[in-house]
Amino acid sequence: MDDSKTCIFCRIARGQAEASVIYDDDLVVAFLDLHPVAEGHTLVAPKRHASGLAALDPESGARVFAVARRVALALRSGGWHVDGVNLHLADGAAAGQSVFHAHLHVIPRHVGDDFGLRLPLGSRPAPDRAGLEATAARLRRGLAEGVEA
Amino acid sequence: MDDSKTCIFCRIARGQAEASVIYDDDLVVAFLDLHPVAEGHTLVAPKRHASGLAALDPESGARVFAVARRVALALRSGGWHVDGVNLHLADGAAAGQSVFHAHLHVIPRHVGDDFGLRLPLGSRPAPDRAGLEATAARLRRGLAEGVEA
Repeated sequence: MDDSKTCIFCRIARGQAEASVIYDDDLVVAFLDLHPVAEGHTLVAPKRHASGLAALDPESGARVFAVARRVALALRSGGWHVDGVNLHLADGAAAGQSVFHAHLHVIPRHVGDDFGLRLPLGSRPAPDRAGLEATAARLRRGLAEGVEA
Repeated sequence: MDDSKTCIFCRIARGQAEASVIYDDDLVVAFLDLHPVAEGHTLVAPKRHASGLAALDPESGARVFAVARRVALALRSGGWHVDGVNLHLADGAAAGQSVFHAHLHVIPRHVGDDFGLRLPLGSRPAPDRAGLEATAARLRRGLAEGVEA
């Protein structure tokens, strides 16, 4: 699959599309979101095209997380008045993914900003331990059958 | 700082508190959220206590992300009818963190589930390139002055 010619994040990674890049290395590029929810909202993406988590090689994934952490710490250090940070990744359209090149959002948060993760907490009864254990057994099997360690 | 005696996630990591664990290794533990937003909602946490991203050592962080990816792939593989997955981390109370031991949520998503990241998109004008570049310059300085590579 060669989506890299038309993929906007591949083009940014190659310096062929305009972006406000704050960091790049051999594996990842970090640049500002064009529609930031707060100043400093950053996207960290692997340079190698991966449409989502399944295609993301582990080395690039580790680097994406490491760089997102460093951006978060920079945002929380002096001068930004950032009270917290969310890291957020959407894998699949149903999860809110709109650009199909994996990327991790680094989102500055402020007390009272009135956004974040909207969760239907309390809208369904919490499962009991037996229910959780049945789910856990299924997931353990899925992990055992799954992809590379 | 020794919060590990009372920290619930440290107690889970040591097997001293009840949890439905789906994976553990030398660095991380993954277990089901007690109040899942959907079946299979999992938390991945470092075994070593870290209140947030600043205290999270890079090796544990990389492993947390790698294991979260594997859990996401297991959820998206056959049998779960999961349409997408969010990875989500809250760093700081203002970001929605409630347990002060760093953890990455793996959240199964389904078409029409009506939750996810609530963002104030469109509520503020998108900055122009000059504005983005000014922000990027600040962030590049922050990264250069910042923590370990």
